[in-house]
Amino acid sequence: MAITIKSIYRNQEAHIDQDVQIYGWVKTTRSSNKIGFIELNDGSFFKNIQVVFDDTLDNFKEIAKLPISSSLYVEGKVVRTPDAKQPFEIQASLVKIEGNSNSDYPLQKKRHTLEYLRTIAHLRPRSNTFSAVFRLRSVAAYAIHRFFQDRGFVYVHTPIITSSDAEGAGEMFRVTTLDMNNPPRKEDGNIDYSQDFFGKEASLTVSGQLEGEMFALAFKDIYTFGPTFRAENSNTARHASEFWMIEPEIAFADINDNMNLAEDMIKYVISYVLENAPEEMEFFNTFIDKGVLDRLENIVSSDFEKITYTEAIEILQKSGQKFDFPVEWGIDLQTEHERYITEQVFKKPVFVINYPAAIKAFYMRLNEDGKTVAAMDLLVPGVGEIIGGSQREERLDVLEKKIENMGLSKEDYWWYLELRKYGETKHSGFGLGFERLIMYMTGMSNIRDVIPCPRTPGSAEF
Amino acid sequence: MAITIKSIYRNQEAHIDQDVQIYGWVKTTRSSNKIGFIELNDGSFFKNIQVVFDDTLDNFKEIAKLPISSSLYVEGKVVRTPDAKQPFEIQASLVKIEGNSNSDYPLQKKRHTLEYLRTIAHLRPRSNTFSAVFRLRSVAAYAIHRFFQDRGFVYVHTPIITSSDAEGAGEMFRVTTLDMNNPPRKEDGNIDYSQDFFGKEASLTVSGQLEGEMFALAFKDIYTFGPTFRAENSNTARHASEFWMIEPEIAFADINDNMNLAEDMIKYVISYVLENAPEEMEFFNTFIDKGVLDRLENIVSSDFEKITYTEAIEILQKSGQKFDFPVEWGIDLQTEHERYITEQVFKKPVFVINYPAAIKAFYMRLNEDGKTVAAMDLLVPGVGEIIGGSQREERLDVLEKKIENMGLSKEDYWWYLELRKYGETKHSGFGLGFERLIMYMTGMSNIRDVIPCPRTPGSAEF
Repeated sequence: MAITIKSIYRNQEAHIDQDVQIYGWVKTTRSSNKIGFIELNDGSFFKNIQVVFDDTLDNFKEIAKLPISSSLYVEGKVVRTPDAKQPFEIQASLVKIEGNSNSDYPLQKKRHTLEYLRTIAHLRPRSNTFSAVFRLRSVAAYAIHRFFQDRGFVYVHTPIITSSDAEGAGEMFRVTTLDMNNPPRKEDGNIDYSQDFFGKEASLTVSGQLEGEMFALAFKDIYTFGPTFRAENSNTARHASEFWMIEPEIAFADINDNMNLAEDMIKYVISYVLENAPEEMEFFNTFIDKGVLDRLENIVSSDFEKITYTEAIEILQKSGQKFDFPVEWGIDLQTEHERYITEQVFKKPVFVINYPAAIKAFYMRLNEDGKTVAAMDLLVPGVGEIIGGSQREERLDVLEKKIENMGLSKEDYWWYLELRKYGETKHSGFGLGFERLIMYMTGMSNIRDVIPCPRTPGSAEF
Repeated sequence: MAITIKSIYRNQEAHIDQDVQIYGWVKTTRSSNKIGFIELNDGSFFKNIQVVFDDTLDNFKEIAKLPISSSLYVEGKVVRTPDAKQPFEIQASLVKIEGNSNSDYPLQKKRHTLEYLRTIAHLRPRSNTFSAVFRLRSVAAYAIHRFFQDRGFVYVHTPIITSSDAEGAGEMFRVTTLDMNNPPRKEDGNIDYSQDFFGKEASLTVSGQLEGEMFALAFKDIYTFGPTFRAENSNTARHASEFWMIEPEIAFADINDNMNLAEDMIKYVISYVLENAPEEMEFFNTFIDKGVLDRLENIVSSDFEKITYTEAIEILQKSGQKFDFPVEWGIDLQTEHERYITEQVFKKPVFVINYPAAIKAFYMRLNEDGKTVAAMDLLVPGVGEIIGGSQREERLDVLEKKIENMGLSKEDYWWYLELRKYGETKHSGFGLGFERLIMYMTGMSNIRDVIPCPRTPGSAEF
């Protein structure tokens, strides 16, 4: 029975001098008249295995001229190669061609730009860089689930299609089945959305937080992990129209519990990835972002700093640093400010809490001072903000007043308000953009290069 | 520090005669002039804990009249109750009211219909039934991830927004940012989608399979687990507009490997749930679907049957059974046929393979007979089809011909075809509707009752 290349690498001693059967794709070949070498990869492992074949094989000549990415079935013996770069190789007794590739295969040995690889998103997972990125993404996703499930959190699939612009977090995509060419109209000429699929206007969610609170107030500790959407026409390296978010929500918990959870989670995921994707992390550290390993190990071993927004403003004002955006109490911190604080001042991750109420969302809990809210952002070196969260406003009267003051409608939030009417309690939560975390852990600098099939303005290929 | 009710139940001996601090919501109260009893639940565990309080507490009278769902902080001692139904209770030394509920709380002790509970989806997770359903859903989701990750599968987030109706599996929702009232039009009067957000028409995905193949042909073994959508106007108990699917895809693997994977996965998930949600399963077995435990244990211990479509037709024709839909070779099997085969004939799960090519999708591999394809459906007692999959057509020329014959356009599938051009290999995969699995494991008979916030025609509340 065929085994994986990973199983040979992870259990080398057991396979030495044994016959094995493997499948894989040709990464490179070279050959003389009598002997040839194939770097074979089966996708189970970041590294290739070397297959040696010689002219005792009937199909030696055919194999010798195989194009890159041809798929093979190989039988042979695993032998030590003490004088070579790799620890072992396979001496083939049989090489069977599963499927031919073609000489115009677009991923030849030479290095390609990331921009070019985006145009062949269907093939780029076969390149070293994207093999490492997407396996790491999978390992990190699993780490997230393990972290929360081990702690008894309930995983909630909050809805993707929503009929409320609940969080007001950004521009939304409309979801409709109306005939765009000839939609039903009301007497006043406007579209009659009562005839749309859901009987009203519907959009793609920007956050599962409000529904997350619904479940935290039943299960205490919950998390979401699903896709979210922004219809913003911003073509930057950090923004995608479709991305995955993790949003834990915890009841009977204040902002300090929230910070502790975020710190534990970040450290857990990084540790898990360092332990379970060492070959991939070595690749990133060598070819993508020298120093990423040091940076991640530093995060795991440091105690995150906790300062207030007001302290952050004072630090920035006293810094003597010149910023593009002038610093005064009341401004929203810009990336330049965030990075200065985390990179220059503390040199480690920093929680900034208690932001001015006026620049934060309505659901954040008003502090005793009446002008700040129990918001919490986590800033990390090299990136700036990676997590945003808060203690939620649990007091019905305060929440109603905030909704009114912000010009929102209480009717739109009827069920959210009822969560406070029936057994309110302190609760908190945060959101982590999964792609931002992957970028941070890999050193990849464009969000398009950490998403299997990225969606951005003007682009929804593959 | 406060601990969870789950930790007390799971580690009873360590807590007996100890002082503990807990939080929770009031499920029921009863009291006399001197003593009172609260069933408290903190969401960490399916069961409640009994809190006993008496008039030595300053706020005895206030506590005695608390409405259901009020939230409390309790300090007290865990004591054995050898003569009572429950094994222990907490004798409270302090009961602090975190948040009041209200006497009009809609979830009073009396039993409510599932239909009514759907109208208060924000509160139903606090009921016994939905506490059990949604915790089980979380445990099952984690079981899926564990199963695949333990076997080295790469988790892929295939795109939600898509510009192709690739699978042709069903009606799709349009995703747009155009002004519906006044959309840009081309000279011929039709909508100018080149001005839409993605520069072309876009929809919500019906399946991640094609992109899954993209990744299987790089990583060998992959799976997806994400939301999918159908814009079909069918108001049945088994159809939702938004639901979650699991779609593994395996390379160097034929239909037999595919069946083995599906069987292993189903057994693993059921075993994991039986082991990790015993209180919830006991509840379903008692109140929702008597016999569900037997049914699930039977599945774990049986070898799934494997028959061909042609054999299935013969069995049905020879059965003497009267079906609403007459049986002849070439028909698509209906639920009545599927249930007869799995419930009456084999009394266990049955794989049916090799369906007529004409009733299956273009990407399924054509068998040597030229008229059937290597399709694979898994039928289970009580439900019928729960998994649909196939070996994929890896031969470029055969696939191109099938695309043409079905009136599809080769240009729309350019990258899917290129996957065959560069290193084709046998590969297979299947789709499992997550909600169908949850319904099967819980005995819940309406898909609206296993989704946190269900989306169906005319309904996208919460």
